[in-house]
Amino acid sequence: MQLSAFIDFVKNKKSCLCVGLDNDYNKLPPHLLPHARPMLAFNKHIIQATLDHCVAYKINTAFYEVLGSRGMEMMEETLELIPKSHLVIADAKRGDIGNTAEKYAQTFLDFYPFDAVTINPYMGFETVDPFLNYHNKYAIILGLTSNEGSKHIEELALKDGQKIYQKVISHFAKHRETKKIMFVVGATKAEKISEIRKIAPENFFLVPGIGAQGGKLEDVLHAGMTKDVGLLINSSRGILYQSAGTDFAEKARNAAKEIHEKMKPFIESV
Amino acid sequence: MQLSAFIDFVKNKKSCLCVGLDNDYNKLPPHLLPHARPMLAFNKHIIQATLDHCVAYKINTAFYEVLGSRGMEMMEETLELIPKSHLVIADAKRGDIGNTAEKYAQTFLDFYPFDAVTINPYMGFETVDPFLNYHNKYAIILGLTSNEGSKHIEELALKDGQKIYQKVISHFAKHRETKKIMFVVGATKAEKISEIRKIAPENFFLVPGIGAQGGKLEDVLHAGMTKDVGLLINSSRGILYQSAGTDFAEKARNAAKEIHEKMKPFIESV
Repeated sequence: MQLSAFIDFVKNKKSCLCVGLDNDYNKLPPHLLPHARPMLAFNKHIIQATLDHCVAYKINTAFYEVLGSRGMEMMEETLELIPKSHLVIADAKRGDIGNTAEKYAQTFLDFYPFDAVTINPYMGFETVDPFLNYHNKYAIILGLTSNEGSKHIEELALKDGQKIYQKVISHFAKHRETKKIMFVVGATKAEKISEIRKIAPENFFLVPGIGAQGGKLEDVLHAGMTKDVGLLINSSRGILYQSAGTDFAEKARNAAKEIHEKMKPFIESV
Repeated sequence: MQLSAFIDFVKNKKSCLCVGLDNDYNKLPPHLLPHARPMLAFNKHIIQATLDHCVAYKINTAFYEVLGSRGMEMMEETLELIPKSHLVIADAKRGDIGNTAEKYAQTFLDFYPFDAVTINPYMGFETVDPFLNYHNKYAIILGLTSNEGSKHIEELALKDGQKIYQKVISHFAKHRETKKIMFVVGATKAEKISEIRKIAPENFFLVPGIGAQGGKLEDVLHAGMTKDVGLLINSSRGILYQSAGTDFAEKARNAAKEIHEKMKPFIESV
């Protein structure tokens, strides 16, 4: 997907909501279980219920990988259910080098038709390179995550006072292919979002941590928005599992709509 | 696999060779291509040719993932070809938190019957926890890798002078479950292996970088060996692609045998 077309889509829709399809089999509404493919039925209903309110879907690959080849088929079939208007993200957090990194880029940006994939830069900046060889595709690099353990490595200070996540983000914000680069920035730290926005003034931030993980929506919008919106705010469990009854899709739509309504005035004012 | 049983296996066999099954479809011997499943035929021959000389196999999951659900089936079938005597490693470099990390642990240590899986600790030390809940299974944490880019994050010095990889390794070397923990330690840096051995005196090191990536076998053995051997030295392309002819398996056996012969006197002297 072209970045300019995606920005137009976001602005016209006045939404920067990304719905995370973290399909936990154990949390499916019981009435779906007799289905031949209950997870696929669940995804289909969730996508139909939320697509008017979001601009992107994020697939957490772990939840499909754990089902083996059947899970991979289900991931392919889920991708077919998502309209081409929406950005589709593989939350795969791959990070490797050389020909292995090339295979991962090929896996998510070519074999599976994702628009973007999350990347772990720990092994070095070259882990990202093979993902930048694809046209109109995006590498979403782990910047600062929203978990407790972000202090173990990401937030450590180097000799010059710079923190690891600042070093990673400032490197890729200046990269010659920076238009293909986005960052994961955890939303439990809204004050950090303003700080990171100074280092990366133009890149999109994928912000997890709204809902189940905490983090206040308005604070994030206030802190991170750019003239191109520049934010993708993800909610997974806060939308998917609002009800375990037959009204689960309706409840998911309501949850997505509520977030969408909060976003509208912010995006209108861009 | 029980650690003590594996150590006995290594000592009796006088080998700490791990064969890396990085199956690049484009490098398969042409005469195998008419096979219904050429990669599986290749793996079968390679495993049969090398199992007398190695104690472990490492599967680079990227090379299977890129083939989608068919690749996942091929990975399962490859696992069935490996005798139970050998340690089987998923080189998956996963690194995530919470329920996603749990799914990855379940994927590689339960759904697929691997003995161990490589883990990227960037998001925090809790990324490793779910992998330690399995009996007789092992978490192989990225310590210092053998690529150029290891200097971008892993080798950065903190305010106190400690480097990131030293911090990671010393944390997990003292972990209450350290018997279930191994480290990836790059072999292009044999001088670093002695240094890391001081921080982690007892953990097994998985050493890639012999062969195609450089790194001298004897230096690594000299620098890293413990009373329990404590090393798994991987070779992938240096064994798999010695010949593209019908003698590829014989040439692979010879390459594995040559490494095995070099290892014998070192392991005898433990």
